[in-house]
Amino acid sequence: MPAFPEIERIPFEGPDSHNPLAFRYYDENEVVEGKTMKDHLRFSVVYWHTFRGQGSDPFGPGAAVRPWESGVDDVANAENRARVAFEFFEKLGAPYYAFHDRDVAPEGESLQESHDNFDAVVKVFKEEQQRTGVKLLWGTANLFSNPRFMHGAATSCNAEAFAYGAAQVKKAMEVTHELGGEGYTFWGGREGYQCLWNTDMKREQEHLAKFLHMAVDYAKKIGFTGQFYIEPKPKEPTKHQYDSDTAACLNFLREYGLKDHFKLNLETNHATLAGHTMQHELEAAGAADALGSIDANTGDLLLGWDTDQFATDIYLTTQCMHSILKYGGLNPGGVNFDAKVRRESFEPIDLFYAHIGSMDAFARGLKIAAAMRADGRLEGMVRERYASWDSGIGAEIEAGKHDFDSLSKIMLEKGEAAPNTSGRQELFENVINLYL
Amino acid sequence: MPAFPEIERIPFEGPDSHNPLAFRYYDENEVVEGKTMKDHLRFSVVYWHTFRGQGSDPFGPGAAVRPWESGVDDVANAENRARVAFEFFEKLGAPYYAFHDRDVAPEGESLQESHDNFDAVVKVFKEEQQRTGVKLLWGTANLFSNPRFMHGAATSCNAEAFAYGAAQVKKAMEVTHELGGEGYTFWGGREGYQCLWNTDMKREQEHLAKFLHMAVDYAKKIGFTGQFYIEPKPKEPTKHQYDSDTAACLNFLREYGLKDHFKLNLETNHATLAGHTMQHELEAAGAADALGSIDANTGDLLLGWDTDQFATDIYLTTQCMHSILKYGGLNPGGVNFDAKVRRESFEPIDLFYAHIGSMDAFARGLKIAAAMRADGRLEGMVRERYASWDSGIGAEIEAGKHDFDSLSKIMLEKGEAAPNTSGRQELFENVINLYL
Amino acid sequence: MPAFPEIERIPFEGPDSHNPLAFRYYDENEVVEGKTMKDHLRFSVVYWHTFRGQGSDPFGPGAAVRPWESGVDDVANAENRARVAFEFFEKLGAPYYAFHDRDVAPEGESLQESHDNFDAVVKVFKEEQQRTGVKLLWGTANLFSNPRFMHGAATSCNAEAFAYGAAQVKKAMEVTHELGGEGYTFWGGREGYQCLWNTDMKREQEHLAKFLHMAVDYAKKIGFTGQFYIEPKPKEPTKHQYDSDTAACLNFLREYGLKDHFKLNLETNHATLAGHTMQHELEAAGAADALGSIDANTGDLLLGWDTDQFATDIYLTTQCMHSILKYGGLNPGGVNFDAKVRRESFEPIDLFYAHIGSMDAFARGLKIAAAMRADGRLEGMVRERYASWDSGIGAEIEAGKHDFDSLSKIMLEKGEAAPNTSGRQELFENVINLYL
Amino acid sequence: MPAFPEIERIPFEGPDSHNPLAFRYYDENEVVEGKTMKDHLRFSVVYWHTFRGQGSDPFGPGAAVRPWESGVDDVANAENRARVAFEFFEKLGAPYYAFHDRDVAPEGESLQESHDNFDAVVKVFKEEQQRTGVKLLWGTANLFSNPRFMHGAATSCNAEAFAYGAAQVKKAMEVTHELGGEGYTFWGGREGYQCLWNTDMKREQEHLAKFLHMAVDYAKKIGFTGQFYIEPKPKEPTKHQYDSDTAACLNFLREYGLKDHFKLNLETNHATLAGHTMQHELEAAGAADALGSIDANTGDLLLGWDTDQFATDIYLTTQCMHSILKYGGLNPGGVNFDAKVRRESFEPIDLFYAHIGSMDAFARGLKIAAAMRADGRLEGMVRERYASWDSGIGAEIEAGKHDFDSLSKIMLEKGEAAPNTSGRQELFENVINLYL
Ligand SMILES: [Co+2]
Ligand SMILES: [Co+2]
Ligand SMILES: [Co+2]
Ligand SMILES: [Co+2]
Ligand SMILES: [Co+2]
Ligand SMILES: [Co+2]
Ligand SMILES: [Co+2]
Ligand SMILES: [Co+2]
Repeated sequence: MPAFPEIERIPFEGPDSHNPLAFRYYDENEVVEGKTMKDHLRFSVVYWHTFRGQGSDPFGPGAAVRPWESGVDDVANAENRARVAFEFFEKLGAPYYAFHDRDVAPEGESLQESHDNFDAVVKVFKEEQQRTGVKLLWGTANLFSNPRFMHGAATSCNAEAFAYGAAQVKKAMEVTHELGGEGYTFWGGREGYQCLWNTDMKREQEHLAKFLHMAVDYAKKIGFTGQFYIEPKPKEPTKHQYDSDTAACLNFLREYGLKDHFKLNLETNHATLAGHTMQHELEAAGAADALGSIDANTGDLLLGWDTDQFATDIYLTTQCMHSILKYGGLNPGGVNFDAKVRRESFEPIDLFYAHIGSMDAFARGLKIAAAMRADGRLEGMVRERYASWDSGIGAEIEAGKHDFDSLSKIMLEKGEAAPNTSGRQELFENVINLYL
Repeated sequence: MPAFPEIERIPFEGPDSHNPLAFRYYDENEVVEGKTMKDHLRFSVVYWHTFRGQGSDPFGPGAAVRPWESGVDDVANAENRARVAFEFFEKLGAPYYAFHDRDVAPEGESLQESHDNFDAVVKVFKEEQQRTGVKLLWGTANLFSNPRFMHGAATSCNAEAFAYGAAQVKKAMEVTHELGGEGYTFWGGREGYQCLWNTDMKREQEHLAKFLHMAVDYAKKIGFTGQFYIEPKPKEPTKHQYDSDTAACLNFLREYGLKDHFKLNLETNHATLAGHTMQHELEAAGAADALGSIDANTGDLLLGWDTDQFATDIYLTTQCMHSILKYGGLNPGGVNFDAKVRRESFEPIDLFYAHIGSMDAFARGLKIAAAMRADGRLEGMVRERYASWDSGIGAEIEAGKHDFDSLSKIMLEKGEAAPNTSGRQELFENVINLYL
Repeated sequence: MPAFPEIERIPFEGPDSHNPLAFRYYDENEVVEGKTMKDHLRFSVVYWHTFRGQGSDPFGPGAAVRPWESGVDDVANAENRARVAFEFFEKLGAPYYAFHDRDVAPEGESLQESHDNFDAVVKVFKEEQQRTGVKLLWGTANLFSNPRFMHGAATSCNAEAFAYGAAQVKKAMEVTHELGGEGYTFWGGREGYQCLWNTDMKREQEHLAKFLHMAVDYAKKIGFTGQFYIEPKPKEPTKHQYDSDTAACLNFLREYGLKDHFKLNLETNHATLAGHTMQHELEAAGAADALGSIDANTGDLLLGWDTDQFATDIYLTTQCMHSILKYGGLNPGGVNFDAKVRRESFEPIDLFYAHIGSMDAFARGLKIAAAMRADGRLEGMVRERYASWDSGIGAEIEAGKHDFDSLSKIMLEKGEAAPNTSGRQELFENVINLYL
Repeated sequence: MPAFPEIERIPFEGPDSHNPLAFRYYDENEVVEGKTMKDHLRFSVVYWHTFRGQGSDPFGPGAAVRPWESGVDDVANAENRARVAFEFFEKLGAPYYAFHDRDVAPEGESLQESHDNFDAVVKVFKEEQQRTGVKLLWGTANLFSNPRFMHGAATSCNAEAFAYGAAQVKKAMEVTHELGGEGYTFWGGREGYQCLWNTDMKREQEHLAKFLHMAVDYAKKIGFTGQFYIEPKPKEPTKHQYDSDTAACLNFLREYGLKDHFKLNLETNHATLAGHTMQHELEAAGAADALGSIDANTGDLLLGWDTDQFATDIYLTTQCMHSILKYGGLNPGGVNFDAKVRRESFEPIDLFYAHIGSMDAFARGLKIAAAMRADGRLEGMVRERYASWDSGIGAEIEAGKHDFDSLSKIMLEKGEAAPNTSGRQELFENVINLYL
């Protein structure tokens, strides 16, 4: 019996449609810059928010209506939920999904029991992947919810929390591998501190590096060749999370010899909590050859917590897709909807509205970004700004032909630098609006 | 004729004094942890705020009353100002000062004229250093005020702005060397962007790296062995400054092979603009062996710009001095008052009140931190938190004896991790209050 | 059987004590400004955090160890918990407590059943109040947790949510009255909006005003003469809460003719979420004769959510107590610990550490504030700043003797205003440190 | 000789134009909801940023190239500048402008001399208004730049600063009246505090109220019937400005009997500095019948100061125009570009790019908002959400037929409230995108 009997496969109806259950921009077969939209966007639905989120918040319990849930947190219910999830992925037309180990199946009394529960539901995932063609974008392990991880996992002051986390990640990597997952993500929910006075930060970070090296080694051992990701977030639930932003992650990866093994999984709302735009994080990661995947959502810049809202702002989606096109696309990464419906949007149909609207916004952003690139006006304006570096003294400096002495001599002779030209920020902003 | 005829050398009078022109805690000869307060704190007065700040803000011009200023921005006035500055340093009892090239002398019509103006006043500095024993903590060049640097200096889209900046830094390094300066600082005022759409971030950062390598090479060439510092700040005047925080600076230094040549000059208000506590930045730099010097000030966490206020909060000064003691002290760095009196505190005497109050606050912080360390209660509580890493499975992990397989096996057998102990954050916070 | 067998009544041991289970500053019988500390501070423990908080956060379930909890959410457990709470109040020496209706007893299947459950536990409260002398500072109703209130209560788009909320408040007022409660508080958890596009703000605010008028009328009806409070908070869980700060509350109260019936219950972390200092909110409320009570806690200014931490910063507690003394003290209000131990501080003993540390910090703040007032230096400096208003043109303006014509005439004659004097902010800040 | 010889009257060329010196959406004669765009938008250019802004910031002096400036700050230069300004207004096609007294003409040695300088340039304004048909939206006085106002004007601790400010406002009102200005605005640049310890907040606010009453009285006296506005801003340059946001202004106006005499002039970047969206402030003012005019700009939500950027985001302009249409339009207010080009956009042509792009964005927002209103889908969805208030118990409550007793009785009988319906926030957000 279907969980969403009233919903058919969401059709593409074009921009004039006002049908809230149709796509206006996302036509998976439309070719943009030589590739289908489906292959550009690689949309992925997250299991945690969409199938485990209940709409609780710090001031109230869950409010979501999910008729397929039996109300008992057992394996049977988890297996049934898995079928519902794939019905949703299929009807939505999302080619990928992503999960944490503990989203999938209930935690058992012992680690072994947890593994067994996990395996039971993974069997259903396998069947459903087969049936639908939906694939696993990446897997991960939840090392932050259970109180055993209250002080962190890899960075816990409790060495056995590290060991337990290692056992969980081992299993989650095996399952990801078994399901053909294309990546594996680390989001260090409590890998940070609440209070510096009680914390040995350096020792904790060394433990984290050791943990990640173990993961790299284990991947080799089992032949898992998917991409490893680190997902930056600066805070929440901790006061400070070590993987706070792109720069902090890259610094850590460089310090501990891990740079070659990890790319970044960037999330809009995490970028803004760190004081950066998503565009900044994308460019910073891209420039370091570390742009891996995105957790597509948005935040409220006037709120100080991670609201994980579905993105519908086409300025944001244009920025995302522009940087993604610039750095060669996301593959094996994708546009993963780490986003949740509001507590007040408690009906199952809201899950469709939310995903459809944001898929459309990203499709629209892709088309806008591609149009900007095809036109070339913007890129040309940027190139022109840096023209002084393409010849003369600029080119010589880039070629390593100068030092302080030679430059000083030139400038003492000239007396003053060549005049600047306007940065034209306002014109640049107007130009963006040409393509919307 | 003295500029501050009514002020004598500021005396130490002890905690019971209510004389606003005396120290209550800073007794430069008092020995703490085997070193005089003077040697611990290495207080430094900044030329820019204290002798060039006029109290202007974006909504009004300068309001400061500075009777020693002739009102003409020429070399003669600059020379006279230099004498006044040393009178101030001496009466205050500050052993160090710091400057930008353009603080010292007026910019000329040409680079050569600017150099000449600079040299004229440096001659006075030399005499005054000789006369008073006051020393130069570090020098720097102002590569952000003149409109030629509107797009940055090392990261400008105008290659000649880079060249001009190189010529300025060359000269500023020579002067610093000549004056026996113990360090040289880079704060990249406009080394960042206002708008990502018009910016080639990667190219700009490569130019910055090249610039810093030229500085390192030039130091070798002239025999300058002072410490190089980078001063992180995330924004203002730019939307984003590349040296945004400790982690971003370290990442950049590692990426471009500069880590061995630079330490960080950390400023409280810059830390908080980046979303971090000063204590975080101190610990992050200390852990990476990169804690160089501090720009001692404070900000208003409810305001979003760099207020550069004089710090009087003894929680803050205790945190600073605790981390500084932990990482072996600041040397050749110091506690540099990159702080300014409020626009409304426009009288010369306010300069004394401000410095005295903050020197006392740092001296008090030093004594509190030393008392905490002598007592050992806090450090003991931290050690105890991590005890599980000192033996058994924790020690084995640290020793590299485990991998995911071995840890998983252990945990499958145990079934659950050893119980956690309370993080005791509230008790830690109470313990801090024991020493205040 | 006591829940805290190892704890005796927390003694006062004086500043030299390092016993974490003793007071160093809070001597309830010490007289300050003619009143005992107990009567000044009127400390109150909150039932919700201290007896219902389980240490859950958006990334993990509860972690608190509370051996007295049976694990079954029934009336019997609630009754037993009530006994434990009074044991805690007594051993701590807190003269007051505060609760929401739903903290006290489990919600039933129907409103009537909820009332019955509530009554059963209230009976225990009554006995325990009698036995211990501990009193009820204020009561309130939880109109935000149950999903029926997802869109608000008084401001819900669902009229029956308003009606249900009315029924709950009616009962909560009756119970508060029955227990001799000295006040009744409204914190409008979801009285605001998540999204302006779907909201009729004006209609919602009119409903809120109507609701509060009904409460005022009902108090008259039942003879409840306790003080009504509104507790400002700008956001969380909502995007915007109508009672966002002191000014917004006062505006609302004035607009709807409610100003005479309500005072404010101010909370530090709510003030800072609104972009204000607690001192600002205290002064703003005090100036409007609306300072009622305080929810004593603190936040982390670098985090954007309500952390409700126990305050230990003596600058903050000094500011609180200085304003409270200035406006005549809190009565029938009090210093109510709307604060929670960290998730990682999961042991029962942490509840004692947290309250003791913060009670001591407030006691210390009281003593510091009283010393400042006794000395009079600060107040004198302020008076002197405004001296120009005490005679001459200033006094005439205050007396209503001038208009634009007369003032313009005077100024045209004088040509320029009398010179300003320095604001002396740095000296003021130094003076505060004299008393710490 | 024209200042912008290469610029003709900016033409409307329609959405397909890529000419950066043409309008794509702003066709002043196009009729929307029965009124021309010109009458809806009432665009106004500000004299301060556009003709007095030099592109200075706290880290560098002005960088703007303004060939018409003589370099001498005298009346002749001011007169010439006035001609240039009107050339700009005319070529841009802006029907309004706005100024502060001190933008217009240099401050003299005495108040009388300042008045005389002002009058000389106002004569040119009059001629140019006549010649071009451009009108004055509102006037104001600068009571924050001159150091005499360092502690505020109406709220200064220096009573003569109040008197001097009164004289300035008197004159500025007379000039506004003489020029046929349609309004007069108060933005209290330094009417607030930097430090609460040195401030008597209540006394200062009483002075402010007295000042505004004098202005109201003086308007009556001279027959000025233009609209008075207060412009909220929470901070900068002060730590706290008393007119911090819409709610704070309304509270103040109500407290001091001024509500009938003032409306609000709302600015986007001031709203966001106060933690609110512009849409919130518009709705809050509209609901209180106090929406007067807007200072059209935008800020950077990740920066903490007032960047006063030109708005190009069509979500923002749609929100503005939607609220403005809802509350009956702005008249005598307008869309006033209190916005400045970036320091790096230093060429005169940037002034055109900036205004054209933002005028187009507001025109586009107007058309989108009108289309939304014509369609009615959104308004219908809102009405439906509140349907429970249109009949039955909801309607009875609104009609005043209930109290706590009656509602409690009903709910005890029903046992539970009627079920909620989804808030549909995601669908609402998707619906907005239908019109873009
Ligand atoms: Co994510
Ligand atoms: Co998130
Ligand atoms: Co600095
Ligand atoms: Co600074
Ligand atoms: Co509270
Ligand atoms: Co709170
Ligand atoms: Co404005
Ligand atoms: Co502004």
